[in-house]
Amino acid sequence: MTVLYTDVVSRSTTWNFAKLLLRWKGSLWKVIWAELVLWLLIYTLVSLMYRLLLNCDQREQFENFVKFWSQYTGESFVPLTFILGFFVSLVVDRWWSMYQCMGSTETVATLVASYIEGSDEETITVKRNIIRYMVLTQAMMYLKISFGVRKCYPNLEALRNAGLINEIELKTMEETDSPNSKHWMPIYWSMSLIKQAKRDGKIESDSDSFVVDLYARLREYKNNLSNVNSYMCVPIPLAYTQVVFLAVRLYFLIALFANQYLNFNNTVGGVDLCPRNLTATSSSSSSNKAPEFEVRFGVDLFFPFATVVQFFFYVGWVKVAESLFNPFGGDDDDFEVVELLAKNLQNGLLIVDGAFNKTPAQIRDPYSK
Amino acid sequence: MTVLYTDVVSRSTTWNFAKLLLRWKGSLWKVIWAELVLWLLIYTLVSLMYRLLLNCDQREQFENFVKFWSQYTGESFVPLTFILGFFVSLVVDRWWSMYQCMGSTETVATLVASYIEGSDEETITVKRNIIRYMVLTQAMMYLKISFGVRKCYPNLEALRNAGLINEIELKTMEETDSPNSKHWMPIYWSMSLIKQAKRDGKIESDSDSFVVDLYARLREYKNNLSNVNSYMCVPIPLAYTQVVFLAVRLYFLIALFANQYLNFNNTVGGVDLCPRNLTATSSSSSSNKAPEFEVRFGVDLFFPFATVVQFFFYVGWVKVAESLFNPFGGDDDDFEVVELLAKNLQNGLLIVDGAFNKTPAQIRDPYSK
Amino acid sequence: MTVLYTDVVSRSTTWNFAKLLLRWKGSLWKVIWAELVLWLLIYTLVSLMYRLLLNCDQREQFENFVKFWSQYTGESFVPLTFILGFFVSLVVDRWWSMYQCMGSTETVATLVASYIEGSDEETITVKRNIIRYMVLTQAMMYLKISFGVRKCYPNLEALRNAGLINEIELKTMEETDSPNSKHWMPIYWSMSLIKQAKRDGKIESDSDSFVVDLYARLREYKNNLSNVNSYMCVPIPLAYTQVVFLAVRLYFLIALFANQYLNFNNTVGGVDLCPRNLTATSSSSSSNKAPEFEVRFGVDLFFPFATVVQFFFYVGWVKVAESLFNPFGGDDDDFEVVELLAKNLQNGLLIVDGAFNKTPAQIRDPYSK
Amino acid sequence: MTVLYTDVVSRSTTWNFAKLLLRWKGSLWKVIWAELVLWLLIYTLVSLMYRLLLNCDQREQFENFVKFWSQYTGESFVPLTFILGFFVSLVVDRWWSMYQCMGSTETVATLVASYIEGSDEETITVKRNIIRYMVLTQAMMYLKISFGVRKCYPNLEALRNAGLINEIELKTMEETDSPNSKHWMPIYWSMSLIKQAKRDGKIESDSDSFVVDLYARLREYKNNLSNVNSYMCVPIPLAYTQVVFLAVRLYFLIALFANQYLNFNNTVGGVDLCPRNLTATSSSSSSNKAPEFEVRFGVDLFFPFATVVQFFFYVGWVKVAESLFNPFGGDDDDFEVVELLAKNLQNGLLIVDGAFNKTPAQIRDPYSK
Amino acid sequence: MTVLYTDVVSRSTTWNFAKLLLRWKGSLWKVIWAELVLWLLIYTLVSLMYRLLLNCDQREQFENFVKFWSQYTGESFVPLTFILGFFVSLVVDRWWSMYQCMGSTETVATLVASYIEGSDEETITVKRNIIRYMVLTQAMMYLKISFGVRKCYPNLEALRNAGLINEIELKTMEETDSPNSKHWMPIYWSMSLIKQAKRDGKIESDSDSFVVDLYARLREYKNNLSNVNSYMCVPIPLAYTQVVFLAVRLYFLIALFANQYLNFNNTVGGVDLCPRNLTATSSSSSSNKAPEFEVRFGVDLFFPFATVVQFFFYVGWVKVAESLFNPFGGDDDDFEVVELLAKNLQNGLLIVDGAFNKTPAQIRDPYSK
Repeated sequence: MTVLYTDVVSRSTTWNFAKLLLRWKGSLWKVIWAELVLWLLIYTLVSLMYRLLLNCDQREQFENFVKFWSQYTGESFVPLTFILGFFVSLVVDRWWSMYQCMGSTETVATLVASYIEGSDEETITVKRNIIRYMVLTQAMMYLKISFGVRKCYPNLEALRNAGLINEIELKTMEETDSPNSKHWMPIYWSMSLIKQAKRDGKIESDSDSFVVDLYARLREYKNNLSNVNSYMCVPIPLAYTQVVFLAVRLYFLIALFANQYLNFNNTVGGVDLCPRNLTATSSSSSSNKAPEFEVRFGVDLFFPFATVVQFFFYVGWVKVAESLFNPFGGDDDDFEVVELLAKNLQNGLLIVDGAFNKTPAQIRDPYSK
Repeated sequence: MTVLYTDVVSRSTTWNFAKLLLRWKGSLWKVIWAELVLWLLIYTLVSLMYRLLLNCDQREQFENFVKFWSQYTGESFVPLTFILGFFVSLVVDRWWSMYQCMGSTETVATLVASYIEGSDEETITVKRNIIRYMVLTQAMMYLKISFGVRKCYPNLEALRNAGLINEIELKTMEETDSPNSKHWMPIYWSMSLIKQAKRDGKIESDSDSFVVDLYARLREYKNNLSNVNSYMCVPIPLAYTQVVFLAVRLYFLIALFANQYLNFNNTVGGVDLCPRNLTATSSSSSSNKAPEFEVRFGVDLFFPFATVVQFFFYVGWVKVAESLFNPFGGDDDDFEVVELLAKNLQNGLLIVDGAFNKTPAQIRDPYSK
Repeated sequence: MTVLYTDVVSRSTTWNFAKLLLRWKGSLWKVIWAELVLWLLIYTLVSLMYRLLLNCDQREQFENFVKFWSQYTGESFVPLTFILGFFVSLVVDRWWSMYQCMGSTETVATLVASYIEGSDEETITVKRNIIRYMVLTQAMMYLKISFGVRKCYPNLEALRNAGLINEIELKTMEETDSPNSKHWMPIYWSMSLIKQAKRDGKIESDSDSFVVDLYARLREYKNNLSNVNSYMCVPIPLAYTQVVFLAVRLYFLIALFANQYLNFNNTVGGVDLCPRNLTATSSSSSSNKAPEFEVRFGVDLFFPFATVVQFFFYVGWVKVAESLFNPFGGDDDDFEVVELLAKNLQNGLLIVDGAFNKTPAQIRDPYSK
Repeated sequence: MTVLYTDVVSRSTTWNFAKLLLRWKGSLWKVIWAELVLWLLIYTLVSLMYRLLLNCDQREQFENFVKFWSQYTGESFVPLTFILGFFVSLVVDRWWSMYQCMGSTETVATLVASYIEGSDEETITVKRNIIRYMVLTQAMMYLKISFGVRKCYPNLEALRNAGLINEIELKTMEETDSPNSKHWMPIYWSMSLIKQAKRDGKIESDSDSFVVDLYARLREYKNNLSNVNSYMCVPIPLAYTQVVFLAVRLYFLIALFANQYLNFNNTVGGVDLCPRNLTATSSSSSSNKAPEFEVRFGVDLFFPFATVVQFFFYVGWVKVAESLFNPFGGDDDDFEVVELLAKNLQNGLLIVDGAFNKTPAQIRDPYSK
Repeated sequence: MTVLYTDVVSRSTTWNFAKLLLRWKGSLWKVIWAELVLWLLIYTLVSLMYRLLLNCDQREQFENFVKFWSQYTGESFVPLTFILGFFVSLVVDRWWSMYQCMGSTETVATLVASYIEGSDEETITVKRNIIRYMVLTQAMMYLKISFGVRKCYPNLEALRNAGLINEIELKTMEETDSPNSKHWMPIYWSMSLIKQAKRDGKIESDSDSFVVDLYARLREYKNNLSNVNSYMCVPIPLAYTQVVFLAVRLYFLIALFANQYLNFNNTVGGVDLCPRNLTATSSSSSSNKAPEFEVRFGVDLFFPFATVVQFFFYVGWVKVAESLFNPFGGDDDDFEVVELLAKNLQNGLLIVDGAFNKTPAQIRDPYSK
């Protein structure tokens, strides 16, 4: 289910901002906590190893190692923000297009109810079936790509049990000899039923505009489903996704070492454990890189505050991309297709079977003079 | 209400630029003043604590703390501008799409007035009701998402009092048995009334183009409202928003400490309060980081000018995003939906009930030779 | 008037590039000269004050002040280019959309000429008035937003004198009781006249396609005008514009001081005016920041070449945004709406009143074998 | 074939991320391994030469050379990420547009099956040929641009053998005297056959809407193919592509030298091979640039870890652009046009020849009450 | 002519990349060679002057000058890449829109051939003239903006000689009294001829759909041409273009001096020509900026390799923008409008005059069972 929070930001006040941060479902906290804990765990292990296990020589080597990698932190590594910006833009665009193409039976239902006349059993059955076929196609299409639909309706059998398809239709579908997928067939049946209704004089019309209009709307519906299918079957090239996802993870892999706090004093309880070669120290202290470390060690922090802030930022951002990448999966933000199918069927049947033509008695509004 | 200021920039002169800055409503100043005052207050408290309360040891620790965090200011923290640029682009796109989809009854009203013939009481009632139903749907839809509409018309009862819906219609709506929201029903009634008018011969037409045209325009109207609903119900994923908003606030939280002016001399009235370990000082002064501090302290400023400039910039920008995020809230820039509903009703009724067909007598224009 | 220069760049040669730079109208030079002169003036005053008026102590303080602010130049201040890039993209998009929506009567005129038959006085009058009403609506709409139209036609009276509206129409408009703006009324009259022509059998047609087509084109015309109106009435939120414009100006306000050339030698004619504390100097020279100043002063330049280059760049860019922001103002690049209105009227009347149906005698082309 | 991996990211978990990295087909690893191996080979050769072959003087020169070029690594060279971001955005846009325009016969097939009545031999032949002509045009068009189609059907003869065109049609095509390409002709034949069917009364219609609708869909199909052709015939200007591709390769060419680890100690087994001029060393060590090298050599690494990470990133990104650039080539991610042609023919023929009108018997659905 | 090279990149291999670089037409090399040679020439002159002509004092001044400007190289000058990225995006968008709007007569030709019945001399003449008028309008429109068309057909006389317009038509056009450009008139003639054909019963139709369809396609054609005209007449504001083009050129103007290799040793053949004040040297060598120079001079390069690489990059990119800016000029990549006109005429006439209705005899395809 998509996570609603627009109410919270109806006014841009500081208080609303705070409330926004305190949500859990679909939040930054929920998507990153696992990886953050893992990362902190390894970071701590490395830190403990350095502080407690290593002897002086190993320490120096470790410190050199840290210094070496600390050149590759921040934007001088690879400009993460930039590539994330472009990638997330692309993913958000595709995600929104998919959302807008998920398909609703409402438009066709209103036209069917309005254009196809007659409320005898047969006509009503045809009208209802047109809608059912639309939902059937939708279900068969999403069955391939949606995590949720696959769980509810694992196969055609399940769809039959749900009443979306009956034996006769199942057989007709099987009898059709085609090497390609057959999930568009019900849409053709709908079109065929409409044509039949026209032939039978059930569509009162001076021209053929009504049929053309109905066909156009059905085509629109089908094209929308096709688009969703395309977005899922022709994803962003794998290499692109790998580059982005890998870059962020490598960044924090390196940060495990590069952002370790080094204990230059090597003093435990005032006793210098590793008296260093003084010349080495002096040349180092007069060098360019060292002071940064010195400043850093002015505060011997055990917790890598700054890196955790970056973790919120970069991993949070890439997680947004990951969860939008396949909006038919099982994330908090993902679209609820099963609910959509149910709603499409309910609404569609309600509209064609009576509701549409039950207009209230017309009485004058209070505004007229 | 949206804040108008295009007149001010009709010519790009320096003077116009100055006038632009002096506005209050919807301005940068109005959106950031509260947070800026809060930030400055805390900054001052920290500054006073450092200068007056701390002893020499605490001072040094505090100074180390400041130096540590001052590494994480500017773009080396996280590239705020970049992520803000992408995020604001996305928000502005959605905001403008929402604006363009707010829905106007005018187009349908003109077609209803033109296509449906007759000015008898019954026909006029039908025409007026088609318009009223459109506005009713709009009101019911915005009731869910707009702060202003919810205040004016908290429920269906309020809409009934406003005359948008009458008892009969309310009952018809309640009688419809549907688990889903019913706010599209009035649109169906409108379509149904149009079909009825066609059947009754009130739409003089050689073909069915007029009905198809009217249906298409009504569908457009409904789709627009649907789009607005989608934008509000499927917002930008929460985690993305949190990442952006949090990054800006963390930046200035860190800046509270990182941008404190340090008083290296530690002199009050020429007396050095904390004579330092000289060797420490000299090694520090020959180091890489220190001079920056020295230069900075050349001018002992109590007011963090540069950070305030950045505050204008970054917080101002994120506030733009926040206020556009939900344009149906209560911000200065937000859309006035209640006014829109009133205008839609007035204009629509005016057009269908007479105004449209009252063309002035045709006389020749003065340009013809 | 928009400034044409595409001819100059028909070939991308060095020579064409030079010619491009030498233009004045609508050029970078024209939009920035005033602010550049102002900036240079103040810069010179500050420079003269520093060099001639200050005593040694004040000089040192001033130099500290300069050094302090010189930290906040360049991209480390706020990433101007980035925010300008996003903002200008947005403004250019809106500018181009506005241009494409300005509205032309040509399409409707050709359809009116083709679909409405008859060249008797009455029919011709109706055809001409349909066009005139379109231009009238356009004029009334631009009257609210265009600097040029407001100057030419300050009110309805002026439009009447120009012949765009006559007494009868003015009265009809006044008689309509509506709290909202009435500038769409003439479009409704046009639609009404078309419907009347159909009823009178002047539109020979087997179906109603012609009326639907004409209505669709008129609606397109009206929607275009509506869009222009929207772009002007719902501008980019004020706070966003203020953030961008302010950032650029603050940048150069700071640069007034930060980019001053400091005269470390303090020598005038070989005499050192302010012999400094040597220790201070040496510690400063061994520090990190100082050399940059030294290098800079190696050439004691009185004219801030580099900052002026940046001025061209940043202020030029923001000026582009300012002048495109309201393209109906009085800038060189702004659209000429008055000319458009005249052309729409001339072309429209010409097409409906004869020109359209005057096809030349048909003779075979020379290409046929 | 496009590489499917959306299933893998149906939930954004760490485990899914790992699985994503382990794929080979279409992956980052597959596209860069060759160039990476080549680069590492040369890097090793240079490294070995420096360490084993050069004498002390040459070493120093080599080291100077390395230091010189090491200024031009990272973003200070040219901002690769930025230009790659813009370029890849452009390429991905074009790639997706091409995908969406590849063309399907389904829509036209359903309309042909629905609008053209009759199941006699002649009518069926016409219906089938309309579809065959569409696929023929598609094949002839892709023959010019698709690597795969060219391999399967190198010329018209091959298409004839495949049954897409027969002798009579081939002759008709040859007889047409036109200097331009003739691959749109079959589409015209389809249109002509439709018109003929209308004339023969096979399209039962009260108006001409059906013909107009069919033509519109055929035009859409043709325009889509035209668009694909345009994208391939008017590619992104060569110079732009060269700039981007060259920049990335030059970056790593420079990195071959600039990122070599320098062995300042020049010690092999504790023996200093090249005792340096001490003054030179000291001035160097007190200089600004040297420490970076010192830190770097703290860990004498033989493998350029950091550069390889950048290689993944930059070369991977540019490879994405290269493989999307011509999606009709032979890369893993490229579209399978031959399969599309086969599917279009099969589906189209199946729909027009019976399947469409074989609707299952209509029985009431289980949802009705 | 657009430069085709998509074949070269059908597979993304290293070899294909090399082939891509070796092209000349439309390549990076061709567009920048002239400016590169010029730049190198001046660079060499400056370099020779410094090395051979200047005396010691002038050298020092020159070196100071170089050091001063070398602060303003790279991204610290103005972020060229960024502004180029946004600008090139905008230019490429407009370029592609122009390409897609260039106009083809094919669609209208097929509809004319299909809808207008009759193959008598008169009808064929009308059909052919409809096409010719379309091409005539196109020619008259491009005459104003296309370099190539202006060369081929400098005036209406030339068009008459080419057979695109005859005396009668020329006279009709001249007789029309209009202050505005008349190049849309032939399109109106085409519309008028279609209406006339309808009136004469040559368009067999049950409704008016055919006329509306033909008009819609003609309007589309005209709107496309209008769009091209708009893009050329309302270019990107001059100031924006100047800012971008100027920034790149200023960058390399500054680089002429800033990237000169300085010869600190001042030794020619081992003899130090300018023994310096030692204190100055030492303070300089201990300063921050100097080492960079020292490193740079470690390799005394006469050829500015790195700057040339940047030249490829930045000037190449801006040249892409320049050549796409006016795609109707005379660059290698520019569109060939004259060929388009010829093709439009040939194809259009071929289709309306016979080819369209010459469908091959219908025989069954080999796929049917």
